[in-house]
Amino acid sequence: MKKMAVLSLTAGLLSASTLALATPDPEDAIDYRQGIFTAIYWNFGPMGDMMKGKLDWDGKDFSRRAANVATLSTMPLEGFIPGSYSDDDSDALPAIEKNWDDFNERMTAFQESAAFLAEAAKSGDKASVAPAFMDVAKSCKGCHDNFKD
Amino acid sequence: MKKMAVLSLTAGLLSASTLALATPDPEDAIDYRQGIFTAIYWNFGPMGDMMKGKLDWDGKDFSRRAANVATLSTMPLEGFIPGSYSDDDSDALPAIEKNWDDFNERMTAFQESAAFLAEAAKSGDKASVAPAFMDVAKSCKGCHDNFKD
Repeated sequence: MKKMAVLSLTAGLLSASTLALATPDPEDAIDYRQGIFTAIYWNFGPMGDMMKGKLDWDGKDFSRRAANVATLSTMPLEGFIPGSYSDDDSDALPAIEKNWDDFNERMTAFQESAAFLAEAAKSGDKASVAPAFMDVAKSCKGCHDNFKD
Repeated sequence: MKKMAVLSLTAGLLSASTLALATPDPEDAIDYRQGIFTAIYWNFGPMGDMMKGKLDWDGKDFSRRAANVATLSTMPLEGFIPGSYSDDDSDALPAIEKNWDDFNERMTAFQESAAFLAEAAKSGDKASVAPAFMDVAKSCKGCHDNFKD
């Protein structure tokens, strides 16, 4: 993924023509959404460790990460496009296409719970943030159980 | 990258222990920043195509993408950590560490130009947005010329 992304970034910015297409390539869509989920976990992992006491509680850092997760949660949906459910390149199941309304609702629930957590995290108080954190974690699990290989 | 990211995401959310570390693993940092840059290009590529007339101008979509780029531009810096400049996994040069102040300034310039573009794009007017778009493209190129293999 890396090489392709870097090459296409360079080509797109430095030459007169870009590799971007009016209709996204399914491989690019997979790379895009996986990039977003990687960035979500980069933030959410340490948040979980703080909740579990594996990392010292840092309310300011938790809040910063929660805001990032809330912003990033709005982005992956557009990467789930027809033709992007290959077994080789993605664990996203074709069930997503067949049950789009349910998938869409679950993504909305993820976005809403992440936004609620970001707001709650402004308090900096670990105990009061815990339920909102668990709601986000549950929304992740709910989607994975149904739509991820 | 995909498998590792998905596995660590699942493990982190669904089990009692997570794979997140207090000090990020350099490989995770590379995956993180590359994920962000992939997402930036997912947005910036079609913006460039609109500017060049390869895609029809859609002021609303351009503005949405510009806002995403501005938000995402604030994220990659924290992924440039010691030990994450391997030739095998990344095109980011060790020069970044040796010239951190310059690199940091260029990333700030990228963030500022992206924020300015997002604001300008609210007008929906292609001609008036063009200079701000070029400033972002130049900030990308400036950093790549100096710090990317």
